[in-house]
Amino acid sequence: MEEKRYYFDWAASAPLTETDACCLFGNPSSLHSEGRAAKQALEDARQRCAAVLNVPPETLYFTSGGTEANSIALFSSLIRKGRVISSLAEHSSVREGMETLEKMGRPVGSIAVDPAGRVNAGNFRKALEKYGDVRFAFCMAVNNETGAITDIASLKNIIREFSRPPVHLHCDLVQAVGKIPVDISNWEIDSASLSAHKISGPRGIGLLYLRRPGGIEVFYKGGGQENGVRGGTENIHGALAFANCLEKYAVSGDNGQPAIQAQAKARWKKLISSLSAIGRCTIIPRERTADDDGFSPYILQAAFNDIPGEVMARALDDLGFAVSTGSACSSSSPERPVLVAMGVEEKLRIEGIRISQGWSTTDEEIDLLLDAITEVLKFL
Amino acid sequence: MEEKRYYFDWAASAPLTETDACCLFGNPSSLHSEGRAAKQALEDARQRCAAVLNVPPETLYFTSGGTEANSIALFSSLIRKGRVISSLAEHSSVREGMETLEKMGRPVGSIAVDPAGRVNAGNFRKALEKYGDVRFAFCMAVNNETGAITDIASLKNIIREFSRPPVHLHCDLVQAVGKIPVDISNWEIDSASLSAHKISGPRGIGLLYLRRPGGIEVFYKGGGQENGVRGGTENIHGALAFANCLEKYAVSGDNGQPAIQAQAKARWKKLISSLSAIGRCTIIPRERTADDDGFSPYILQAAFNDIPGEVMARALDDLGFAVSTGSACSSSSPERPVLVAMGVEEKLRIEGIRISQGWSTTDEEIDLLLDAITEVLKFL
Repeated sequence: MEEKRYYFDWAASAPLTETDACCLFGNPSSLHSEGRAAKQALEDARQRCAAVLNVPPETLYFTSGGTEANSIALFSSLIRKGRVISSLAEHSSVREGMETLEKMGRPVGSIAVDPAGRVNAGNFRKALEKYGDVRFAFCMAVNNETGAITDIASLKNIIREFSRPPVHLHCDLVQAVGKIPVDISNWEIDSASLSAHKISGPRGIGLLYLRRPGGIEVFYKGGGQENGVRGGTENIHGALAFANCLEKYAVSGDNGQPAIQAQAKARWKKLISSLSAIGRCTIIPRERTADDDGFSPYILQAAFNDIPGEVMARALDDLGFAVSTGSACSSSSPERPVLVAMGVEEKLRIEGIRISQGWSTTDEEIDLLLDAITEVLKFL
Repeated sequence: MEEKRYYFDWAASAPLTETDACCLFGNPSSLHSEGRAAKQALEDARQRCAAVLNVPPETLYFTSGGTEANSIALFSSLIRKGRVISSLAEHSSVREGMETLEKMGRPVGSIAVDPAGRVNAGNFRKALEKYGDVRFAFCMAVNNETGAITDIASLKNIIREFSRPPVHLHCDLVQAVGKIPVDISNWEIDSASLSAHKISGPRGIGLLYLRRPGGIEVFYKGGGQENGVRGGTENIHGALAFANCLEKYAVSGDNGQPAIQAQAKARWKKLISSLSAIGRCTIIPRERTADDDGFSPYILQAAFNDIPGEVMARALDDLGFAVSTGSACSSSSPERPVLVAMGVEEKLRIEGIRISQGWSTTDEEIDLLLDAITEVLKFL
């Protein structure tokens, strides 16, 4: 008999449901009928993504994923003067990219995060003041360890008031799109990264948003596809599947999935209040309350006293529950740099696990997870 | 009634037949059961690819495609001293990458190609002599415009005899693997790029081969996946589909598909002799004969007197036949830089079309293509 599994690691990757079985195989750069049909399908996919995200289609460029979208934005700074700064909570694709920039002799810098892991207006202003020559700033919208939401619009306000020439603001929206209301246009983000596989799409497809097409000079143009922004034969099946995902799950401005959102919030409220009632459990950060709107209702970081996160995750895995000890992309590093940046003490960092849900998570699964945690706590 | 189509642009992209419908969705970097299963599937795919290519599995790194595999190799030179040279026939992903390197102030240089578009030993030696400080050389194995095969082993012989420290030789194998016998190990290639969608796999998956793991320092590590060589959540479905493609179509050393190869050769022999018999047709290069083993039996470049290639391609497209006017990735550039480098005169460059076949092309389709060309020539 196959073991029943309960999946609580949606922030790492979601179950794949949105594929696209279209039979188009032409190269969109080819001029024959097969090529033109492929090109048309690609542009249809782009338009559908743009409609959901409420941005002009020509601002969206398909990439191989969130990591590549981040890196295209990051490395565009290699051919432009001025400093690049990033928050200390960024995904490893940005963090490692910053190290590469530094190795290349580019001026870089960092933006402190608050104890929840978000960039607040004060820290953002301080960073701009500290470094007088900032041209690029990288701030993720939803922290992938704690779910803390950064108020992107407030950062743009500071840029508008304060910095001349204006700083280019790049937002990693990978944990935001399909999870919280995102309003790229009204937030006036300059560039952003999105990934399909976090919202049940296939691997290998992402999006880079560029508010002003041509607004960044791309470091490496490859074969010139995607208007010179991303080289390589276009992944049409991936693009169509991504459009399906966005139409199903994205919440953009008023256009959204309020029912899915409300259910996710209710489930998370229950999970957080139940965990908070367990003496040995510490929610990270401690100030996060059960229905705190400052956090995504899809991600939770929690620690259990005297149980290393890895032990807890393994014990739950044995009972059929998949949770993680942090960002999958950083699982090879035991340091948990994001929690360090938040000022989380070492004991809690070691004990922390990340629980994340998705659109198909049920109330019953939350109950079963709580039962499983209670069970583990009896023995550990 | 749907129009019957005949596809002769396999060099741009092949019909998609090898997909993988496995239901694994875990993130291979995750430690739970779903993550471990995904990791296992990824490593199985790598081992299967390695077995076909006759290389150790740890020398293979999955990428988002051939373009990315080329660019990882290319940009590793950013953090290493010494000159980078490339043949004048390289794919646009290398050509544009070289321009980026030059813009970054790196010393670069070029290797002349012969009238067929291949790098011969003489030109390779000349380039190494001209630039005394070469550390990286990029030479594709099969020219994607003419099908000319470069004798990679002969270039390695020159490197061995001549250059101290030895030059790192990178080969773009995108048009070679699955088309001609490839022997990565015996040729002693230092790094190579492969793409799945050229051999009926999905878009968005490729391979980078690195003879000495750690032999190049990667410019940008992303999230640290693929042993730090290529960042981004791993595309497991793509990797499994690529393994399927290689097992079906790759010809590596003695391990191969002799029947498919023999049929492709016979069909190409017929096409070339029939076209050569048409007074208005010029095979490019002129010295290519009907069963010339110096060319891939999958690609043919031909020109028709007084008919621009674009007009010919459009006329054939109207009759149901897809051919191209050159590399799809360069279709936005009318310059045809590879034909320029080969010394093809301007008139023939304008008139040239590329015909490419694949494993499912039939003798009958070749006959019908020849009929269609004859038909077009009556009116144009």
